[in-house]
Amino acid sequence: MRLGRIHHVAHVVRSIDAALPGFEARFGMTIELRETMREQAVEAVLLRAGDSHVELIEPLDPDGPIARFLESRGEGFHHVAYEVDDLRAALDELAAGGAELIDRAPRVGLGGHLIAFVHPRSGGGVLTELIQAEGHAEHR
Amino acid sequence: MRLGRIHHVAHVVRSIDAALPGFEARFGMTIELRETMREQAVEAVLLRAGDSHVELIEPLDPDGPIARFLESRGEGFHHVAYEVDDLRAALDELAAGGAELIDRAPRVGLGGHLIAFVHPRSGGGVLTELIQAEGHAEHR
Repeated sequence: MRLGRIHHVAHVVRSIDAALPGFEARFGMTIELRETMREQAVEAVLLRAGDSHVELIEPLDPDGPIARFLESRGEGFHHVAYEVDDLRAALDELAAGGAELIDRAPRVGLGGHLIAFVHPRSGGGVLTELIQAEGHAEHR
Repeated sequence: MRLGRIHHVAHVVRSIDAALPGFEARFGMTIELRETMREQAVEAVLLRAGDSHVELIEPLDPDGPIARFLESRGEGFHHVAYEVDDLRAALDELAAGGAELIDRAPRVGLGGHLIAFVHPRSGGGVLTELIQAEGHAEHR
Protein backbone atom coordinates (compact mmCIF):
# COMPACT_ATOMS: atom_id res chain seq x y z
CA MET A 1 0.00 0.00 0.00
CA ARG A 2 1.23 3.42 -0.91
CA LEU A 3 -0.43 6.67 0.06
CA GLY A 4 -0.70 9.15 -2.80
CA ARG A 5 -0.30 12.89 -2.74
CA ILE A 6 -1.65 15.18 -0.05
CA HIS A 7 -5.24 15.95 -1.02
CA HIS A 8 -5.81 18.58 1.67
CA VAL A 9 -4.88 19.97 5.03
CA ALA A 10 -7.81 20.93 7.24
CA HIS A 11 -7.95 23.91 9.59
CA VAL A 12 -10.51 24.43 12.32
CA VAL A 13 -11.69 28.05 12.38
CA ARG A 14 -14.19 29.95 14.51
CA SER A 15 -15.82 31.46 11.44
CA ILE A 16 -15.36 30.43 7.82
CA ASP A 17 -16.58 33.83 6.65
CA ALA A 18 -13.99 35.59 8.78
CA ALA A 19 -11.20 33.24 7.65
CA LEU A 20 -11.95 33.20 3.92
CA PRO A 21 -10.37 36.54 2.91
CA GLY A 22 -7.01 35.33 4.24
CA PHE A 23 -7.15 32.33 1.94
CA GLU A 24 -8.90 33.88 -1.06
CA ALA A 25 -7.53 37.41 -1.31
CA ARG A 26 -4.18 36.89 0.40
CA PHE A 27 -3.22 33.39 -0.77
CA GLY A 28 -5.14 33.38 -4.08
CA MET A 29 -7.08 30.19 -3.32
CA THR A 30 -10.50 29.57 -4.87
CA ILE A 31 -13.56 27.92 -3.31
CA GLU A 32 -14.30 24.52 -4.81
CA LEU A 33 -17.27 23.67 -2.62
CA ARG A 34 -19.04 24.63 0.59
CA GLU A 35 -21.21 22.20 2.53
CA THR A 36 -23.09 21.93 5.78
CA MET A 37 -22.33 18.47 7.17
CA ARG A 38 -25.22 17.93 9.60
CA GLU A 39 -23.98 14.59 10.90
CA GLN A 40 -20.67 16.13 12.01
CA ALA A 41 -22.38 19.42 12.95
CA VAL A 42 -19.89 21.46 10.94
CA GLU A 43 -19.82 23.84 8.02
CA ALA A 44 -16.91 23.13 5.68
CA VAL A 45 -15.28 24.80 2.70
CA LEU A 46 -12.81 23.21 0.32
CA LEU A 47 -10.38 25.68 -1.26
CA ARG A 48 -8.14 24.86 -4.19
CA ALA A 49 -4.37 25.42 -3.87
CA GLY A 50 -2.70 24.29 -7.07
CA ASP A 51 -3.88 20.71 -7.48
CA SER A 52 -4.22 20.27 -3.70
CA HIS A 53 -6.70 21.77 -1.26
CA VAL A 54 -7.27 23.43 2.09
CA GLU A 55 -10.37 22.56 4.09
CA LEU A 56 -11.81 25.03 6.59
CA ILE A 57 -14.06 23.57 9.29
CA GLU A 58 -16.39 25.66 11.47
CA PRO A 59 -18.32 24.05 14.32
CA LEU A 60 -22.11 24.42 14.28
CA ASP A 61 -22.74 22.63 17.58
CA PRO A 62 -21.14 24.40 20.59
CA ASP A 63 -20.95 21.04 22.42
CA GLY A 64 -19.55 19.03 19.48
CA PRO A 65 -16.00 17.71 19.07
CA ILE A 66 -14.89 20.51 16.72
CA ALA A 67 -16.14 23.20 19.13
CA ARG A 68 -14.27 21.41 21.95
CA PHE A 69 -11.15 21.28 19.75
CA LEU A 70 -11.41 25.07 19.22
CA GLU A 71 -11.91 25.71 22.90
CA SER A 72 -8.87 23.67 23.96
CA ARG A 73 -6.43 24.44 21.13
CA GLY A 74 -7.74 27.50 19.29
CA GLU A 75 -7.84 27.88 15.53
CA GLY A 76 -5.35 25.78 13.62
CA PHE A 77 -4.41 22.52 11.98
CA HIS A 78 -6.87 19.65 12.35
CA HIS A 79 -5.87 16.85 9.94
CA VAL A 80 -4.05 15.95 6.74
CA ALA A 81 -5.62 13.84 3.98
CA TYR A 82 -3.79 11.62 1.48
CA GLU A 83 -5.23 10.25 -1.73
CA VAL A 84 -5.53 6.49 -2.18
CA ASP A 85 -6.69 4.58 -5.24
CA ASP A 86 -8.67 1.93 -3.36
CA LEU A 87 -9.73 3.01 0.12
CA ARG A 88 -11.20 -0.32 1.20
CA ALA A 89 -8.02 -2.19 0.26
CA ALA A 90 -5.90 0.46 2.01
CA LEU A 91 -7.94 0.12 5.24
CA ASP A 92 -7.70 -3.68 5.12
CA GLU A 93 -3.94 -3.51 4.72
CA LEU A 94 -3.51 -0.92 7.48
CA ALA A 95 -5.70 -2.95 9.85
CA ALA A 96 -3.75 -6.12 9.05
CA GLY A 97 -0.54 -4.25 9.88
CA GLY A 98 -1.90 -3.21 13.29
CA ALA A 99 -2.75 0.42 12.50
CA GLU A 100 -5.37 2.05 14.71
CA LEU A 101 -8.26 3.06 12.47
CA ILE A 102 -11.01 5.47 13.49
CA ASP A 103 -13.10 4.33 10.51
CA ARG A 104 -12.73 0.64 9.72
CA ALA A 105 -14.82 1.08 6.55
CA PRO A 106 -15.08 3.93 4.03
CA ARG A 107 -17.74 6.58 4.66
CA VAL A 108 -18.92 9.54 2.65
CA GLY A 109 -17.15 12.82 3.41
CA LEU A 110 -16.98 16.34 2.02
CA GLY A 111 -17.86 16.54 -1.65
CA GLY A 112 -19.20 12.98 -1.68
CA HIS A 113 -15.73 11.42 -1.59
CA LEU A 114 -15.14 8.13 0.22
CA ILE A 115 -12.99 8.84 3.27
CA ALA A 116 -11.70 7.20 6.45
CA PHE A 117 -9.66 8.46 9.40
CA VAL A 118 -6.54 6.89 10.90
CA HIS A 119 -5.86 7.61 14.58
CA PRO A 120 -3.01 10.05 15.32
CA ARG A 121 -1.29 7.21 17.23
CA SER A 122 -0.83 5.50 13.85
CA GLY A 123 -0.12 8.73 11.97
CA GLY A 124 3.02 10.03 13.66
CA GLY A 125 0.96 12.12 16.08
CA VAL A 126 -1.20 13.61 13.31
CA LEU A 127 -4.88 12.86 12.62
CA THR A 128 -4.71 11.35 9.13
CA GLU A 129 -7.51 11.01 6.59
CA LEU A 130 -7.43 8.76 3.54
CA ILE A 131 -9.56 9.89 0.61
CA GLN A 132 -10.47 7.95 -2.49
CA ALA A 133 -10.28 10.87 -4.90
CA GLU A 134 -12.25 9.61 -7.87
CA GLY A 135 -10.88 10.41 -11.26
CA HIS A 136 -7.44 10.98 -9.81
CA ALA A 137 -5.99 7.52 -10.43
CA GLU A 138 -5.60 8.15 -14.13
CA HIS A 139 -3.68 11.38 -13.53
CA ARG A 140 -0.81 9.61 -11.83
CA MET B 1 -0.40 36.12 -6.00
CA ARG B 2 -1.55 32.55 -5.94
CA LEU B 3 -0.09 29.81 -3.76
CA GLY B 4 0.51 26.57 -5.59
CA ARG B 5 0.02 23.04 -4.39
CA ILE B 6 0.94 21.76 -0.96
CA HIS B 7 4.61 20.79 -1.13
CA HIS B 8 4.76 19.18 2.31
CA VAL B 9 3.35 18.92 5.77
CA ALA B 10 5.94 18.80 8.55
CA HIS B 11 5.68 16.74 11.73
CA VAL B 12 7.84 17.17 14.80
CA VAL B 13 8.92 13.79 16.18
CA ARG B 14 11.07 12.74 19.13
CA SER B 15 13.06 10.36 16.95
CA ILE B 16 13.12 10.17 13.16
CA ASP B 17 14.41 6.59 13.32
CA ALA B 18 11.51 5.56 15.54
CA ALA B 19 8.95 7.35 13.35
CA LEU B 20 10.20 6.21 9.94
CA PRO B 21 8.71 2.68 9.85
CA GLY B 22 5.23 4.18 10.27
CA PHE B 23 5.74 6.29 7.16
CA GLU B 24 7.84 3.89 5.08
CA ALA B 25 6.43 0.43 5.79
CA ARG B 26 2.90 1.40 6.79
CA PHE B 27 2.18 4.32 4.43
CA GLY B 28 4.53 3.32 1.58
CA MET B 29 6.43 6.61 1.54
CA THR B 30 10.04 6.78 0.34
CA ILE B 31 12.90 8.90 1.68
CA GLU B 32 13.90 11.66 -0.71
CA LEU B 33 16.57 13.24 1.47
CA ARG B 34 17.88 13.41 5.03
CA GLU B 35 19.81 16.37 6.36
CA THR B 36 21.24 17.72 9.57
CA MET B 37 20.38 21.42 9.66
CA ARG B 38 22.93 22.76 12.16
CA GLU B 39 21.61 26.33 12.14
CA GLN B 40 18.13 25.15 13.25
CA ALA B 41 19.63 22.38 15.40
CA VAL B 42 17.40 19.76 13.82
CA GLU B 43 17.66 16.57 11.84
CA ALA B 44 15.11 16.43 9.02
CA VAL B 45 13.86 13.85 6.55
CA LEU B 46 11.78 14.53 3.48
CA LEU B 47 9.51 11.63 2.46
CA ARG B 48 7.71 11.42 -0.86
CA ALA B 49 3.91 10.90 -0.88
CA GLY B 50 2.72 10.92 -4.47
CA ASP B 51 4.02 14.20 -5.85
CA SER B 52 3.86 15.82 -2.41
CA HIS B 53 5.96 15.25 0.71
CA VAL B 54 6.05 14.76 4.45
CA GLU B 55 8.87 16.30 6.47
CA LEU B 56 9.89 14.80 9.80
CA ILE B 57 11.79 17.10 12.16
CA GLU B 58 13.76 15.87 15.19
CA PRO B 59 15.32 18.35 17.62
CA LEU B 60 19.07 18.07 18.21
CA ASP B 61 19.29 20.84 20.83
CA PRO B 62 17.27 20.10 23.99
CA ASP B 63 16.91 23.86 24.60
CA GLY B 64 15.96 24.79 21.01
CA PRO B 65 12.52 25.82 19.73
CA ILE B 66 11.68 22.39 18.26
CA ALA B 67 12.52 20.66 21.55
CA ARG B 68 10.34 23.20 23.38
CA PHE B 69 7.54 22.56 20.85
CA LEU B 70 7.79 18.81 21.60
CA GLU B 71 7.76 19.41 25.33
CA SER B 72 4.66 21.59 25.26
CA ARG B 73 2.61 19.92 22.52
CA GLY B 74 4.07 16.46 21.95
CA GLU B 75 4.68 14.88 18.57
CA GLY B 76 2.53 16.20 15.76
CA PHE B 77 1.88 18.73 13.04
CA HIS B 78 4.34 21.62 12.80
CA HIS B 79 3.74 23.48 9.51
CA VAL B 80 2.38 23.26 5.98
CA ALA B 81 4.37 24.39 2.92
CA TYR B 82 2.93 25.66 -0.38
CA GLU B 83 4.83 25.96 -3.64
CA VAL B 84 5.26 29.39 -5.21
CA ASP B 85 6.87 30.23 -8.54
CA ASP B 86 8.63 33.39 -7.36
CA LEU B 87 9.20 33.51 -3.61
CA ARG B 88 10.59 37.06 -3.47
CA ALA B 89 7.59 38.43 -5.38
CA ALA B 90 5.20 36.45 -3.16
CA LEU B 91 6.79 37.85 0.00
CA ASP B 92 6.67 41.40 -1.35
CA GLU B 93 2.98 41.04 -2.17
CA LEU B 94 2.14 39.45 1.19
CA ALA B 95 4.04 42.20 3.06
CA ALA B 96 2.28 44.89 1.03
CA GLY B 97 -1.04 43.31 1.98
CA GLY B 98 -0.18 43.46 5.67
CA ALA B 99 0.65 39.78 6.22
CA GLU B 100 2.92 39.01 9.17
CA LEU B 101 6.07 37.39 7.78
CA ILE B 102 8.61 35.50 9.88
CA ASP B 103 11.11 35.67 7.00
CA ARG B 104 10.92 38.91 5.04
CA ALA B 105 13.42 37.51 2.48
CA PRO B 106 13.96 34.02 1.07
CA ARG B 107 16.44 31.76 2.87
CA VAL B 108 17.81 28.33 2.10
CA GLY B 109 15.87 25.44 3.63
CA LEU B 110 15.81 21.66 3.44
CA GLY B 111 17.19 20.29 0.18
CA GLY B 112 18.59 23.70 -0.82
CA HIS B 113 15.17 25.13 -1.70
CA LEU B 114 14.43 28.81 -1.14
CA ILE B 115 11.87 29.07 1.65
CA ALA B 116 10.20 31.62 3.93
CA PHE B 117 7.75 31.33 6.81
CA VAL B 118 4.49 33.23 7.30
CA HIS B 119 3.31 33.71 10.90
CA PRO B 120 0.33 31.57 11.98
CA ARG B 121 -1.56 34.83 12.64
CA SER B 122 -1.53 35.37 8.85
CA GLY B 123 -2.04 31.68 8.02
CA GLY B 124 -5.40 30.94 9.62
CA GLY B 125 -3.74 29.77 12.82
CA VAL B 126 -1.27 27.52 11.00
CA LEU B 127 2.47 28.09 10.60
CA THR B 128 2.81 28.40 6.82
CA GLU B 129 5.94 27.96 4.71
CA LEU B 130 6.32 29.12 1.13
CA ILE B 131 8.80 27.15 -0.97
CA GLN B 132 10.17 28.00 -4.37
CA ALA B 133 10.26 24.45 -5.70
CA GLU B 134 12.65 24.69 -8.62
CA GLY B 135 11.73 22.78 -11.70
CA HIS B 136 8.09 22.67 -10.63
CA ALA B 137 6.84 25.74 -12.47
CA GLU B 138 6.92 23.99 -15.83
CA HIS B 139 4.82 21.09 -14.51
CA ARG B 140 1.78 23.25 -13.88
